[in-house]
Amino acid sequence: MRLKPFALVLLALGAPPAPAGDVPAGFFASSREAEARAERAFLATPSADKARRWLQTLTEEPHVAGTPQEKALAEYVRDRFREMGLEADIVRYDVFLNHPKSVTARLVEPVEEELALREEPIPGDKDSTRRGMFPAFHGYGASGGAEGQVVYANYGTPADFEKLQSLGVPVQGRIVLARYGRVFRGLKVKEAQERGASGILIYSDPADDGYMKGDVYPDGPMRPPSAIQRGSVRFNSYAAGDPSTPGWASTPGAKRVPRDEMDSVPRIPSLPLSYAEAEKILRRLGGVRVPDDWQGGLPFAYHVGPGAAAVAMDVQMDEGLKPIFNVIARIPGTEAPEQLVILGNHRDAWTHGAVDPSSGTASMLEAARGLAAALATGWRPRRTILLASWDAEEYGLVGSTEWAEDRAAELTAHAVAYVNLDSSVTGPDLDVGGVPSLRDLVREAARDVPEPKKGGSVGEAWERRERAEWARESPIELHGPEPTFELQVDPLGSGSDYTAFLDHLGVPSLNFGFDGPYGVYHSVFDNFRWMERFGDPEFLYHAAAARLYGLLAMRLASADVVPLRFGSYATALRQSLDALRRDVLRKARTPAEPDGKESRPLVPDFGPVLAALERLGAAGAAADRAVERLVAAERRDLAAQANAALLQVERAFVSPDGLPGRPWFRHVLYAPGTTTGYAAWPFPGLRQAVEDRDPALFAAESAKVVTALDAAAERLSAVARLAP
Amino acid sequence: MRLKPFALVLLALGAPPAPAGDVPAGFFASSREAEARAERAFLATPSADKARRWLQTLTEEPHVAGTPQEKALAEYVRDRFREMGLEADIVRYDVFLNHPKSVTARLVEPVEEELALREEPIPGDKDSTRRGMFPAFHGYGASGGAEGQVVYANYGTPADFEKLQSLGVPVQGRIVLARYGRVFRGLKVKEAQERGASGILIYSDPADDGYMKGDVYPDGPMRPPSAIQRGSVRFNSYAAGDPSTPGWASTPGAKRVPRDEMDSVPRIPSLPLSYAEAEKILRRLGGVRVPDDWQGGLPFAYHVGPGAAAVAMDVQMDEGLKPIFNVIARIPGTEAPEQLVILGNHRDAWTHGAVDPSSGTASMLEAARGLAAALATGWRPRRTILLASWDAEEYGLVGSTEWAEDRAAELTAHAVAYVNLDSSVTGPDLDVGGVPSLRDLVREAARDVPEPKKGGSVGEAWERRERAEWARESPIELHGPEPTFELQVDPLGSGSDYTAFLDHLGVPSLNFGFDGPYGVYHSVFDNFRWMERFGDPEFLYHAAAARLYGLLAMRLASADVVPLRFGSYATALRQSLDALRRDVLRKARTPAEPDGKESRPLVPDFGPVLAALERLGAAGAAADRAVERLVAAERRDLAAQANAALLQVERAFVSPDGLPGRPWFRHVLYAPGTTTGYAAWPFPGLRQAVEDRDPALFAAESAKVVTALDAAAERLSAVARLAP
Repeated sequence: MRLKPFALVLLALGAPPAPAGDVPAGFFASSREAEARAERAFLATPSADKARRWLQTLTEEPHVAGTPQEKALAEYVRDRFREMGLEADIVRYDVFLNHPKSVTARLVEPVEEELALREEPIPGDKDSTRRGMFPAFHGYGASGGAEGQVVYANYGTPADFEKLQSLGVPVQGRIVLARYGRVFRGLKVKEAQERGASGILIYSDPADDGYMKGDVYPDGPMRPPSAIQRGSVRFNSYAAGDPSTPGWASTPGAKRVPRDEMDSVPRIPSLPLSYAEAEKILRRLGGVRVPDDWQGGLPFAYHVGPGAAAVAMDVQMDEGLKPIFNVIARIPGTEAPEQLVILGNHRDAWTHGAVDPSSGTASMLEAARGLAAALATGWRPRRTILLASWDAEEYGLVGSTEWAEDRAAELTAHAVAYVNLDSSVTGPDLDVGGVPSLRDLVREAARDVPEPKKGGSVGEAWERRERAEWARESPIELHGPEPTFELQVDPLGSGSDYTAFLDHLGVPSLNFGFDGPYGVYHSVFDNFRWMERFGDPEFLYHAAAARLYGLLAMRLASADVVPLRFGSYATALRQSLDALRRDVLRKARTPAEPDGKESRPLVPDFGPVLAALERLGAAGAAADRAVERLVAAERRDLAAQANAALLQVERAFVSPDGLPGRPWFRHVLYAPGTTTGYAAWPFPGLRQAVEDRDPALFAAESAKVVTALDAAAERLSAVARLAP
Repeated sequence: MRLKPFALVLLALGAPPAPAGDVPAGFFASSREAEARAERAFLATPSADKARRWLQTLTEEPHVAGTPQEKALAEYVRDRFREMGLEADIVRYDVFLNHPKSVTARLVEPVEEELALREEPIPGDKDSTRRGMFPAFHGYGASGGAEGQVVYANYGTPADFEKLQSLGVPVQGRIVLARYGRVFRGLKVKEAQERGASGILIYSDPADDGYMKGDVYPDGPMRPPSAIQRGSVRFNSYAAGDPSTPGWASTPGAKRVPRDEMDSVPRIPSLPLSYAEAEKILRRLGGVRVPDDWQGGLPFAYHVGPGAAAVAMDVQMDEGLKPIFNVIARIPGTEAPEQLVILGNHRDAWTHGAVDPSSGTASMLEAARGLAAALATGWRPRRTILLASWDAEEYGLVGSTEWAEDRAAELTAHAVAYVNLDSSVTGPDLDVGGVPSLRDLVREAARDVPEPKKGGSVGEAWERRERAEWARESPIELHGPEPTFELQVDPLGSGSDYTAFLDHLGVPSLNFGFDGPYGVYHSVFDNFRWMERFGDPEFLYHAAAARLYGLLAMRLASADVVPLRFGSYATALRQSLDALRRDVLRKARTPAEPDGKESRPLVPDFGPVLAALERLGAAGAAADRAVERLVAAERRDLAAQANAALLQVERAFVSPDGLPGRPWFRHVLYAPGTTTGYAAWPFPGLRQAVEDRDPALFAAESAKVVTALDAAAERLSAVARLAP
């Protein structure tokens, strides 16, 4: 039986007295007692009741970026940090944003009917009324009008639009009706725009997000008929941050790109719709029946159109430079104050945002209280901890990206890790994304945070679920070695504020949250009442998230050797590469289209990358062994050298040229997919070449990946040579 | 480029003059011209217009087994065979059947409402009225009443009932509401009965069979809200045929099992429902929300119950011995008249049965006309061809099973092959099931039947679709040899009249049909109007089915060496075994339930069966080579010996003891699954042992399979030794 972990038992929630526990990775034995004392003080602090009160206050008003409510909330958060005794300041940027002046959507054929862009208020839920709320709109959605027949485009992926074309139903000059899901909404707009659509409506289909997923609010946590998913339509796989300063910071006097030259925001109007409203269009569409997998959950057979239904939409935006406000709190490091451990969470919301992101803000404030409590015991981190409350994440990761671009040189030189928290709680199931070098850290920390309702730790529950998913999903091979389960963190795509840190700068990043059934995303029903009733009625998981968040920070900031471990990096990459290889083999089985329009699938040579992964694996294992030895030997001189080297390993994966067609994304191992937006593409350059069936691109990207992997292996070998 | 096949060009449908074509397998070169002439006469005969007229006449009245309309139809079919100049007779059996006297289902809580057991007539569709139609009922459904709260049991599989139990919702004393699909309906009733339910209602869910699959009748071919799926609730994986004579023929004076001792028909009442009626219950069910994959296509979140909805059902059956009428036409063989090639198709229907089975009967009559035309040119088959129009298939394959049991000794000694046609057409896509030894025959024949609308042959279209499905679905392995596509016929489960021939007697069997979107199965809308509008408006595929059917018969009956080829049998079995091995490995990954209730998954030794498959593969290839050589050498003496041996190879797969728990099923390689009913379980004994986690059973069944495979290999080696 595994010994009870160190911090978990120290928490003493009715647990028996602590036996000698495990020492967190990277700590010298001599550092153990001080760390244990500090962690005890930290872990005892976060409280469910306090988290509830934070959340209630944070969600009192809708707080869209660029509004006075959001500025007030920045000041509120800054003041709370200060109250806790932390240094905290507001960092303002003026960035391009939009707010709706007037938006309408109307069915004009076969009958005239206004389509609602507001939710139906629910009796007893005060936050579901219109008070202080914009009508539903799209962040960075274009101003403009469109009127015409409607074509249903399924999820609006490139493949979906291709399918429409092959059915003889081009979208040119028409209004596209697409359902949310599969790809980031901005990419649906991009695709519709590039194919000549005059406008696009995006709705939540009950098959994906509504009654087919469970009881709907207020009877259950899922999306009710009138709920509308707001959100940004930035082309997020191509760039992040303020679209008027692509690649540089929105500092005073910065060069600005004018609206009509911005290449990552739409030019055609778009609006979100509820399924109650979308049904009025869909039910009337003529044309051929949809392909089988385009059918959604409304109770009739879907058709692609055009015909019968025509729609008029008009979108007028108030757009231009508006101030946004990041709040940065700072706990200075003692030994290596220049080295930065950054915790970030956005604060702006489309509505009241109880889940997204205020649950994360509540957890961050509780983590901050815990860190303050640890500081009160005399603990000081070796490295500097920053707590960042970002603004304008919802528009396109704007606050975090401008800050990261602003401080790119410092972050490149000194950032140890970035830990993101967005929505911290929609339910009880811990989910973790990140780079493999942080896997050991988060596994250890999660094992030291008690599961508040089921016993054991949140880490054990996480590992059980991951193992069950692996058993269910991972491929079976009759030949070759039978694979065994190894816990991995999920690859990061995009959709939250780690993007600039990881994808642009190569800072090792983590992102986590506690998940459950959640159907009110970006609607007015994402409010305090929903959270109290369904998401986390006892607010226990808000406190658990705070514990995990702070524990990660403390260990990253205080370990004698930074807890970046590379032994499993190659294993995780190999799994991702194998998935890509399977896709390639699958595509190679499908004969080219008889019309010859589609070229032959690409069956490239993965050999060089596979070989480089072998080298990385060996170097990573050697580095981990060396670190173990120097920790055991308590060699502080070598630890400093190891730290300097370890925090630069991930930076080797950054290519100065960036990825094909999107130079801002520079990490050659992880990026959001150009056709997915949210979901990760490991080996994005290779994947792009496969998608594009471009052997020359594959060869070039393969060389880039091999160079990066070998550079990282070289840095790891330098660490290995430090073994005492 | 492949040479134009032999018969296809002879059909001369505007095709260029015939080059020297392929010779069908098993024909001596010297037999070629006579065969070509006969096939030409045959293929020129089937006509779409005649098929349309047959179908219209056959579907004039509903014709349930045991009714006067069905007897009249037997006489009609016999008379038509005779008109064509064929010998034809009616073979009567008196078998246990039921018809409804009175059936009712009523919602009694929270409101009183009668649930309709009749479809809503559709204006303009005369056959959708109630004229001459029983209310909806289940064949072999029990008489009785039940009243109580309702529990939703998803598809009613054993796993579904286990899930209910684990949710704390036992069905004991309650009425089960299950949706159609996944498993044969009789097994749903069996499972509900064994778990103590008082009654069961089975409905068609629109997610599986309704608007989510396409436009509903009369706007499209799919199931409309009021359509009810009738059908038998015989426990079909355990036995087939008359339940009063299990395992023996229902001849005059035969021993009879009384109703209450029959172990393959239900004791609790059951009824089918439409989704319009089921919605009235489902929408009101309380209890917990269903597991995610239990959600169907009605527009609300499903709950398992119990609570809110209670139902009363009353089923009164007129049951007892009733006469059924097979029609058997005979074309005597010249050289080996004792050797039998049997074509079979059932005639009885739950309603008018335009698709099921009258499309098959229309195709069979057109095939018979074609054979008569071939006979008129002087052609005579070497072996005897029987055309069988079976009765009471719908109740449990009764007519075919009683006949096969009646003539078991003769069939075991002399049957060459059985070719089944049930529903011949619901659309354009040829689908073929059967034993691998008939793969080459059907591939060749299908290549010689023109595709009536797309050009090329139905065989080429079939192979293209199968290849695409293989590319999409078959597993990818990164290790081991990359598999290549090889056309296979699908393994046969049960659900039509090949069952007694293949599973009980070991007669090589085929089953085929042309498939398309079909949502009126076993409802009053399965009528001539549906077929004219959606299934086969030009009746071209009815004629194509007739061509393929007759061509298979001619070649089976006339080839100098019977076209049974065993070179690919082991390959096909290996694919099926690999699928089972993957299932086993998948299960082995999932840890046993922590409550210890479920025992460890079984990870058995497949080595002996894999080795026996190697031996079978080698022997099969050697036999095929020997046959090729004696055909090339035109050695008629050796051909007779080869024929005698080849037609006994499949019989080696019959085990006298039968399968575990179901002795009537005796084929050790193919059977319907005990938990599926329709779907095949290749290696049924091994699969049963894996399902039951029973290592002793696995060892015993593995030995049985090895014995059977080796016996077949021995018979094939005897054929190989005939090589001239």
